[in-house]
Amino acid sequence: MDKSILTLEQTRIEDPFWFRVRETVRREGIPYQWKALNDEIPGAEPSRCMRNFRIAAGKMQGEHAGFIFQDSDIAKWIEGAAFSLRWYPDPELEKIVDGAIEEVVAAQQPDGYLDTYYIINGLDKRWTNLKDNHELYCAGHMIEAAVAYYQVTGKRVLLDAVIRLVDHIDSVLGAEEGKLPGYPGHPVIEMALMRLYQVTGNPKHLNLARYFVDQRGRSPLFFEEEDKRNGNKFYWKDSYFRYQYYQAGKPVREQEDAEGHAVRAMYLYSGMADVARETGDSSLADSCRRLWRSVVSRRMYITGSIGSSEYGEAFTFDYDLPNDTVYGETCAAIGLVFFARRMLSLEPKAEYADVMERALYNGVISGMQLDGRRFFYVNPLEVLPEASLKDHGKHHVKVERQKWFGCACCPPNVIRLVSSLEDYIASVRGDALYLHLYTGGDLKLSVGGTPVSLKTETDYPWSGAISVTVTSETPVSFALNLRVPAWCSSWTLKLNGRAVTPDLTDGYLTLSRTWNPGDRLELSLDMPVSFVSANPRVYEDAGKVAVTRGPLVYCLEEPDNGKDLHLLRLGAVRPEDCRVEWKPEKLGGIMEITTPGIRESDAGWGDTLYSSEKAIASAPVSLTWIPYYAWANRDPGEMRVWIRKDTISPSA
Amino acid sequence: MDKSILTLEQTRIEDPFWFRVRETVRREGIPYQWKALNDEIPGAEPSRCMRNFRIAAGKMQGEHAGFIFQDSDIAKWIEGAAFSLRWYPDPELEKIVDGAIEEVVAAQQPDGYLDTYYIINGLDKRWTNLKDNHELYCAGHMIEAAVAYYQVTGKRVLLDAVIRLVDHIDSVLGAEEGKLPGYPGHPVIEMALMRLYQVTGNPKHLNLARYFVDQRGRSPLFFEEEDKRNGNKFYWKDSYFRYQYYQAGKPVREQEDAEGHAVRAMYLYSGMADVARETGDSSLADSCRRLWRSVVSRRMYITGSIGSSEYGEAFTFDYDLPNDTVYGETCAAIGLVFFARRMLSLEPKAEYADVMERALYNGVISGMQLDGRRFFYVNPLEVLPEASLKDHGKHHVKVERQKWFGCACCPPNVIRLVSSLEDYIASVRGDALYLHLYTGGDLKLSVGGTPVSLKTETDYPWSGAISVTVTSETPVSFALNLRVPAWCSSWTLKLNGRAVTPDLTDGYLTLSRTWNPGDRLELSLDMPVSFVSANPRVYEDAGKVAVTRGPLVYCLEEPDNGKDLHLLRLGAVRPEDCRVEWKPEKLGGIMEITTPGIRESDAGWGDTLYSSEKAIASAPVSLTWIPYYAWANRDPGEMRVWIRKDTISPSA
Repeated sequence: MDKSILTLEQTRIEDPFWFRVRETVRREGIPYQWKALNDEIPGAEPSRCMRNFRIAAGKMQGEHAGFIFQDSDIAKWIEGAAFSLRWYPDPELEKIVDGAIEEVVAAQQPDGYLDTYYIINGLDKRWTNLKDNHELYCAGHMIEAAVAYYQVTGKRVLLDAVIRLVDHIDSVLGAEEGKLPGYPGHPVIEMALMRLYQVTGNPKHLNLARYFVDQRGRSPLFFEEEDKRNGNKFYWKDSYFRYQYYQAGKPVREQEDAEGHAVRAMYLYSGMADVARETGDSSLADSCRRLWRSVVSRRMYITGSIGSSEYGEAFTFDYDLPNDTVYGETCAAIGLVFFARRMLSLEPKAEYADVMERALYNGVISGMQLDGRRFFYVNPLEVLPEASLKDHGKHHVKVERQKWFGCACCPPNVIRLVSSLEDYIASVRGDALYLHLYTGGDLKLSVGGTPVSLKTETDYPWSGAISVTVTSETPVSFALNLRVPAWCSSWTLKLNGRAVTPDLTDGYLTLSRTWNPGDRLELSLDMPVSFVSANPRVYEDAGKVAVTRGPLVYCLEEPDNGKDLHLLRLGAVRPEDCRVEWKPEKLGGIMEITTPGIRESDAGWGDTLYSSEKAIASAPVSLTWIPYYAWANRDPGEMRVWIRKDTISPSA
Repeated sequence: MDKSILTLEQTRIEDPFWFRVRETVRREGIPYQWKALNDEIPGAEPSRCMRNFRIAAGKMQGEHAGFIFQDSDIAKWIEGAAFSLRWYPDPELEKIVDGAIEEVVAAQQPDGYLDTYYIINGLDKRWTNLKDNHELYCAGHMIEAAVAYYQVTGKRVLLDAVIRLVDHIDSVLGAEEGKLPGYPGHPVIEMALMRLYQVTGNPKHLNLARYFVDQRGRSPLFFEEEDKRNGNKFYWKDSYFRYQYYQAGKPVREQEDAEGHAVRAMYLYSGMADVARETGDSSLADSCRRLWRSVVSRRMYITGSIGSSEYGEAFTFDYDLPNDTVYGETCAAIGLVFFARRMLSLEPKAEYADVMERALYNGVISGMQLDGRRFFYVNPLEVLPEASLKDHGKHHVKVERQKWFGCACCPPNVIRLVSSLEDYIASVRGDALYLHLYTGGDLKLSVGGTPVSLKTETDYPWSGAISVTVTSETPVSFALNLRVPAWCSSWTLKLNGRAVTPDLTDGYLTLSRTWNPGDRLELSLDMPVSFVSANPRVYEDAGKVAVTRGPLVYCLEEPDNGKDLHLLRLGAVRPEDCRVEWKPEKLGGIMEITTPGIRESDAGWGDTLYSSEKAIASAPVSLTWIPYYAWANRDPGEMRVWIRKDTISPSA
């Protein structure tokens, strides 16, 4: 099995697409967010995150401010900065991170406890509300930060601190007599402990992760007992969620559907997959597969966004995927990438990589403005500015990305994912190497104990032409598995210029051989414009299609197509009628799609609101489509992914 | 001008359609609601309404319970009972009403004040929160009840009480020095005072109504001043409504759009139209016309329901008419009927009657179960039971009517409107009689001082054949105006068996002559099945049609068409392909429509959520449509009004 999530080899991503995104994060996102965490962004909601640590360390006076989980923001930022330092060493940034770590660690208590909310407000209350008060969530993120920073820099200050913190947690929580049989209201510590275990090899860390997974939802329900102790104030009591808001209504192995808060669900499932992989627990792996199926076959947007409802930031029910009231939190799409990556480690099937790619290229990077300075929390598939303003049910759908959020989980989450993209490209299983994502650059990793170097050249996702050259200095034997994405129905492959047709298994073309230095594979994935339908059970998309090309979902935006996007439809147009053109100056460089379309109008309707006699006038127009991730980078306006397409009626 | 809203002549409605509804209200609704107001319905939310009066009168101890406007429920019930007694004398009911009035009046204070909330909780606080605390709203409804009961029975107990109450109000509120320059947060007293004025002829009553209309929204804003006095707790402060929630953000003559709480808007506009008619105030009439246009041309559902959003139970913006998250409160559709009726009195134009009819036959009576025992507050045009349960944004959309509501404004409102339908059928202007609604029965009223009797026979709304026979005993000269509904594109008219083609002006066929006893008009309105489109600007209905016949909007319901109604569409079907059949045993007797249709399916899709290659299978089916008002009278399930209809693409 692929034991490691962090491949940590000297992989470099240098294709134009991701290099731009990662440079933006490195140059803009990381410094900007450090300022935000220190309340230095004029006009943005203050974070108070670093200030809380200073107060908790006794360096200044004041109250804890911001959310109860504010500590996690700096943790995620440290982790993102660590990943950035891995591919772009930067002593000045490293110095800042060292300083930040020093501030964080200064707040740690003698017994290892570290959470500014309770340190400031009274340690006597700690561990009394695991369900809602996020101590384990903050701890989890701090562990992830510590592991990443240690792996990249070798520095142990934060690592040693979180090991002490975990010792403390382990002394308080657990199934043993005298401990609280609790688990986190917001998962993340499960996968964090698995990463810590990777570094420490300490079974205590594995066992604690496994305990959190297994204890969750068991009867008697810890959260229910805790609620009783806390006066029975249970926010979701009268909701249909109840404890499934926290994925804790029943043991995880009994959960059939992805339910409740979408980010929590993804983080939990990721931790479950980690534990299943590490321990070979097949029933837990089955649960992961079942929950995966629930998400990707019935509860996921075409952009890889998840969470159909603002209420609870949550899943609703099968095939309920409203485009205009969607939540689609950036963090939830990121969580889906985490989950997909871990399922790939569990079993290399391209369907996991397909979803990972779908989320990455669409619902994740849509969360960040092209300049890296503004962020979406919610990623809608249909926006009408007036509705965001005047329909309270859409008030969460913003037309412009925001500078910062009081609850700023998403911006640093984008940073840490984008900066660690190397870890998502490939995985190794025995003597087989799987290429999941096609990003240009150098890949260096160990396959079955043998060091392997590959150079990938591609203009993906704009082009489906990918060349992979073996750059190892000596011949190496291994099976190279190249993913054929689900969106691709036709491909060719050449090895050193000659066509080959290897077996396609679970979505991968497998080439098992001894590779010589300079061996060159040329994979050509057909990348036409596609009109994608949703499963007919998705009632919000009935009669509509989305335009896609390769992994990218496209959208119509007001700056290109004018107002009233609902009046646009696709006629009986075929994908071949579409034009694809590279626009280097537009939105950071995009492949723009134009299609023939139809614009309806209210000509002749005047004041009439309903009529059986008036025709709906329409005229041919050219529709301009841009990649979804690039929307809302110009003047604010309407946007739509799904539009009506004429059905040729059998009775017509 | 038509000075009177209450025609109060001996009009009888005896056609099968309305007789059934009115009998249901009389036999079931009125006794049931009296029990509800006395907390005698097992399993229903207790009202506490009559209990509050008993406490306020010092007959028992206890706290005020229920909403601050709970008094209005008994007022509306008394009014409804009065109207019922007008067409169906019932000494037993009259005795109950007398008793109820005795209980109400017993709570009145020596200075005329009457509001149980403040009587029980302390009179020192009265008149301190006109914006939210509904004293004037309760007073308004009590005035309407008193006037109706006096007009029907000649009994003055409640009338005298409300005259004392109005004297008290007039002593406290007004533009004069020393009075509070306030007005109601929830209008209704405006139109109530106009009805009182009709009975008393006391200019004080007219002037107070006019004051409330004119003072509203004037600067400095009374509500803003009041908020300052009350600690600036203003619920809608951060909403886009602000004071327009109350239609008080600016003077009524400056308001362009129907905004804020839909019921309040309708009651206000109705009062404005009353004042405009009575005083000949043409600028106020213009405001009424402008606000009417805003509602009916841009903000009204095809069912005559209004209020697009649960948030604030309010209007949102032009052409925003979501079918599944709609509010469409029964009271708001009733309010639209009030407004339409008053616009007809202002100027007899059939467009007002068209809307009145649309609301009455659809969004109003949909509010009551066929057996008269359960009620809808919200009247959706699209229901998916799972969504009502699991999508919080649709939690207000109920799949079944409820027994009663904590806030029970709608049930007694249905009762009072249905029981007073006589007052909506016709109006008189000079020597012209306008027939607005076609209901079978006897119409006796005074036209230009001459008593006129007509007998109407019809099976409307099931048939468009209407005969009107002059039953006056002597020849009478007047202009009879027969409305040709906007839904009717073809009609014939015979006078004593011979075809006539009178002028059609403002939607009325005018026949000016001396009518002899026995003269008989036969109007035949073509009533085919129609496929109605919404104005293309209504984005929620793009690509869809509604099926209608005559004034009735039809819907698809799960008991007839199975689940997954979103999979159904109309192909290139023509209205002529539809079958109309009388079903005497179904839903109280309905004309059922069947149309050819198409049912899509997810056959072949399996676990696939998105695909550019899979076709959407479809098969011809027969669709069964029932009148919208009759939905939710069988097993709970899905319902839809608007469904997709194939567009024949010009490029196909």
